[in-house]
Amino acid sequence: MATTLKGQPLDKASLDSMLRRRMFYTPSFEIYGGVAGLYDYGPPGCALQTNIVDVWRKHFILEENMLEVDCTALTPHDVLKTSGHVDKFADWMCKDPKNGEILRADHFVEAILEARLKGDKEARGVKVEEDKEAADANSNNKKKKKTAKSVAVRLDDAVVQEYEEVLAKIDNYDGPELGELIKKYDLKNPETGVLPSDPVAFNLMFQTSIGPSSNLPGYLRPETAQGQFLNFAKLLEFNQSQMPFASASIGKSYRNEISPRAGLLRVREFLMAEIEHFVDPQGGKKHGRFHEVEGVELALLDRATQLSGKTEVRKMTIGQAVRDGVVDNETLGYFLARIHLFLERIGVDMTKARFRQHMGNEMAHYACDCWDAELFTSTGWVECVGCADRSAYDLTVHAKKTGAPLIVREKLETPLAIEEWEIDIEKKKFGPLFKKDAKTVEAALEATTQEQRERLAAALGADGKVTLEVPGVGEGKVELGSEHIKIEFRKRMEHTREYTPNVIEPSFGIGRILYSLIEHNYWSRASDGGDEARGVLSFPPVVAPTKVLLVPLSSNAQLKPAVRTVSQKLRALGVSSRVDDSSASIGKRYSRNDELGTPLGITVDFQTVQDGTITLRDRDSTNQVRAEVDKILEAVKALVDGSKRWADVEAELPKFEGQEVEVAVR
Amino acid sequence: MATTLKGQPLDKASLDSMLRRRMFYTPSFEIYGGVAGLYDYGPPGCALQTNIVDVWRKHFILEENMLEVDCTALTPHDVLKTSGHVDKFADWMCKDPKNGEILRADHFVEAILEARLKGDKEARGVKVEEDKEAADANSNNKKKKKTAKSVAVRLDDAVVQEYEEVLAKIDNYDGPELGELIKKYDLKNPETGVLPSDPVAFNLMFQTSIGPSSNLPGYLRPETAQGQFLNFAKLLEFNQSQMPFASASIGKSYRNEISPRAGLLRVREFLMAEIEHFVDPQGGKKHGRFHEVEGVELALLDRATQLSGKTEVRKMTIGQAVRDGVVDNETLGYFLARIHLFLERIGVDMTKARFRQHMGNEMAHYACDCWDAELFTSTGWVECVGCADRSAYDLTVHAKKTGAPLIVREKLETPLAIEEWEIDIEKKKFGPLFKKDAKTVEAALEATTQEQRERLAAALGADGKVTLEVPGVGEGKVELGSEHIKIEFRKRMEHTREYTPNVIEPSFGIGRILYSLIEHNYWSRASDGGDEARGVLSFPPVVAPTKVLLVPLSSNAQLKPAVRTVSQKLRALGVSSRVDDSSASIGKRYSRNDELGTPLGITVDFQTVQDGTITLRDRDSTNQVRAEVDKILEAVKALVDGSKRWADVEAELPKFEGQEVEVAVR
Repeated sequence: MATTLKGQPLDKASLDSMLRRRMFYTPSFEIYGGVAGLYDYGPPGCALQTNIVDVWRKHFILEENMLEVDCTALTPHDVLKTSGHVDKFADWMCKDPKNGEILRADHFVEAILEARLKGDKEARGVKVEEDKEAADANSNNKKKKKTAKSVAVRLDDAVVQEYEEVLAKIDNYDGPELGELIKKYDLKNPETGVLPSDPVAFNLMFQTSIGPSSNLPGYLRPETAQGQFLNFAKLLEFNQSQMPFASASIGKSYRNEISPRAGLLRVREFLMAEIEHFVDPQGGKKHGRFHEVEGVELALLDRATQLSGKTEVRKMTIGQAVRDGVVDNETLGYFLARIHLFLERIGVDMTKARFRQHMGNEMAHYACDCWDAELFTSTGWVECVGCADRSAYDLTVHAKKTGAPLIVREKLETPLAIEEWEIDIEKKKFGPLFKKDAKTVEAALEATTQEQRERLAAALGADGKVTLEVPGVGEGKVELGSEHIKIEFRKRMEHTREYTPNVIEPSFGIGRILYSLIEHNYWSRASDGGDEARGVLSFPPVVAPTKVLLVPLSSNAQLKPAVRTVSQKLRALGVSSRVDDSSASIGKRYSRNDELGTPLGITVDFQTVQDGTITLRDRDSTNQVRAEVDKILEAVKALVDGSKRWADVEAELPKFEGQEVEVAVR
Repeated sequence: MATTLKGQPLDKASLDSMLRRRMFYTPSFEIYGGVAGLYDYGPPGCALQTNIVDVWRKHFILEENMLEVDCTALTPHDVLKTSGHVDKFADWMCKDPKNGEILRADHFVEAILEARLKGDKEARGVKVEEDKEAADANSNNKKKKKTAKSVAVRLDDAVVQEYEEVLAKIDNYDGPELGELIKKYDLKNPETGVLPSDPVAFNLMFQTSIGPSSNLPGYLRPETAQGQFLNFAKLLEFNQSQMPFASASIGKSYRNEISPRAGLLRVREFLMAEIEHFVDPQGGKKHGRFHEVEGVELALLDRATQLSGKTEVRKMTIGQAVRDGVVDNETLGYFLARIHLFLERIGVDMTKARFRQHMGNEMAHYACDCWDAELFTSTGWVECVGCADRSAYDLTVHAKKTGAPLIVREKLETPLAIEEWEIDIEKKKFGPLFKKDAKTVEAALEATTQEQRERLAAALGADGKVTLEVPGVGEGKVELGSEHIKIEFRKRMEHTREYTPNVIEPSFGIGRILYSLIEHNYWSRASDGGDEARGVLSFPPVVAPTKVLLVPLSSNAQLKPAVRTVSQKLRALGVSSRVDDSSASIGKRYSRNDELGTPLGITVDFQTVQDGTITLRDRDSTNQVRAEVDKILEAVKALVDGSKRWADVEAELPKFEGQEVEVAVR
């Protein structure tokens, strides 16, 4: 079960109402009825997002001198055809034949099975609130949107176990398998009582066309990565040909989700921050700064554990994980640890974080390994960061399609002697023989292995001709004579080595991180008067939307000059502040700012006019200190840049008591 | 003619080659052949963009407590239908019937007439380089992409004058008028020798569809403004109902330009920064901080001057301009001055800036007045910022369509007595009479003026019935009896005033500003050895992509610890730096960084190891000073935050000479 920062049960409805009231985010186009999966950020959400991105840029880009690029979201069809997205970037969807409702197949299976398990628990008399927690933990249900109502029906123990195993690996089923599960378990849509249609693949990219004659089909990018890959050669040159290096990009991506229903956790337009770290695949993908992070302890849930139907995490240092082979290599491990440190720095509750390895069928088409940083929220575990090993997949397919050399040329210290079978093509005879097919035949020749070449050479020597399979040319075979090709075993010296780098890709969904961060920092404070509890968002200063609330005790004109002075001084210090000079009571104004997550409050009162002192209030403890303006501002600066904590300030400056109780001076 | 920062003729080809070599920006998808109008920013371009946006956020959002929002680019059809963009956001395009080429009509007319004028000057023996400059100044040709070749043919003096007048108001013609100009002046496409087709409107929005069943048509937003308008009621509430206030948004927008050919100046996906300042239309749109800027002097080119066929700017303070009525009101004037100060702050050459007022037909459909901040570049005057008075247009149309109250309710200090004709509808009889048309008839009644109501009341009294024109209902007229409506002259007390705010919208095209800034800060330095000139980008530190280049004199291991220390200290100071430890000579490394616009260079050499001193080099003068690390870093910090200039540093620290000449130590 999700809890608040203080361990209270999380009241999602109160939180949602608070976030809406304070305009953290709001459904886009709401006065037009809204569009599912599209949200706007209001001022505090927008500032929170900007601050998270700012920490991200410092933590990753500046710290490691990554090459930041900003590529277009509009992408022509050919690029995404080559990358595999046109054919494979899809989810499985079913249609309810009765009411036409469109269902995401995996979410549908998940929701119905969970409802049955819940009904079983009810029938067995197990308390349902606990049950919810168990279901959350079991099912990796980060994607569940739709929930089905449970009916108290007791199931066989064997069936319960079967359902739980299915749920533990729900992300591993493809469309036909999901279709089989629907039939096998007779999963009817509760709203109509009928079985949905067989799952069909639905491509998640938004389509458009570029230019006035509508002749260039294109898509909105589903990830920022492709722009980085296409620029690889230029980036390598910019980096003065030094490897390894990373590029990075922060920008919007777009996925036409089938039926988004989970607020910021599943949206159709979202901000991503992606790193493409290019590394030599030889030598075990070591990382030069791995020693700096090897003691960082992570909670890991690996592939094998999940496939055995379990979800227990193992806590271990990343150093240990790489040594034991749980995490494949140092570079992947380095980034997992760096992701952990980033999440910790912005204020994520790390007891609600785990790294989960993808199962085989779950991985994107381009990935050969992938770990997700998942954060626990009221909708279960949410994938917030993916860290994939894309191997050489993308650079290879784009190079093959365009002929661009997306490779690294490395000068060898000692030249390599290479002995191998080489094929020479006699262009003059070869070209006219195959005409338009010449390139295809040439590619087929180049694709032959050393063993094949040895056999071809022998055949060519014996018969003066060979037969080669070339799908798509003639009847799938062509005949070549010694006037067309020559095959010889030769020795040559290589002075440079050419290779296609592998890519490790940490990819951050900023909106999901932002929402999880809100839940992790939310709690409610019993009010003094015994009224309803008041919400607090205890963001660390580094990400808090506004750092300081500035409140004049009353609207008396005498207080205005001091407010203006403090406000200007804060601006000069680079500390964001807001003045609240509304007529509400001090308590109400502080309460509003607790909801906005503002860590510090400064009150200007009549004593300020007399002796130049102001009070400083800590959001989390509501304690206050009082001192001259410059001393307080020095403390503010230290609290905001993280060099001091509130306890330090309280130890240094005189405590102030009394104002939190309402003072109604006019 | 465009010039460099030092007044040299601007060599566009050299600049372009440098920008490409240093990866400021690059055509997107270049290895796939590229797509017109789409560009990616490489590392220096991306950092320059981030820094410009950062200054913008501080100068506008933080300085004035604007409410920043982040809304989606995906926008459903209904929103943009209401806003007028579906019907009116279009350019005029012609097709060449022979080769199928698609031409933007205004650009085509402009290019051909300019070529004829140039040919005339050649025939008269006027030097053509000067001519280019004159044409640029005359034609506001910020949008010109395609240029036509000139042929030396002398024209009548009257014809020359006619052409010049047409060019001065080229932005004021609509499609049919452009079609007439093409026929009147027999403007044939030089590539085919035939007249293009009549201009047709081409909508500039990219279309897509949202959701799996493709039933929700949508567009990519052409501006960020609509999201801000739709959230008006929530923003007003967030601002505790205080007026005036401004929202702001920084994000990508999309326009499917007909045939973009001007690099970053006309692209299909671009970063915008937009402010919507909501102001009470009553009381002359005063601005509370106008006095702070009234002395700022601007170069203004108003509508009347242009319509008279001239292009001379007038220099005057914004205070004077508002007093004289050249600029309509204080709020508009305030933002023009603030825009001027922003451009100046990031390093725009303000002798190459002007504010040009839009002519009637040129304005967007939503604007009632508009001034563009234009910057002069090698392609003429470029519109970089628009400052439009959108009046109450957008809030009114959205409120009307959705019924949402996009208004301000203001409590009146003294209640207002209002006497006027009011119409009551007797719903019981009215509804059944008109059925589905009832709302339309009701709206027509509500739209009647006080004078009309008085006449209707008289008629109703005399005849017991009235006839009302209601287009689209019945035969355009309906008859109403006294059983359906009552019209009375009544007095009532108003305690609140309701009004729809007007909107002043400063809208920034970040990419165009970035490109103009590059041209304005570019110059070439004669190299010491008499080789070819070397490019320099003299960006102010505040926007420079990197602030400090850190170079070890050689790759000797002894220098590494000092480089590491300085690098860490710079990071702690929040100053971005890059180490160049390549094997190139110091001169080459500095030269590379002059091209990247890095204002400062620090050299670590063998003397550093002995006495802890380092040298600091100024990009613009190439002068150097030398002192202990901490003294140098203090100077760096002051130079970067703008509190000192290089001359101050040179006066304080010992001058250093000698290293700029090559030193080849190993």
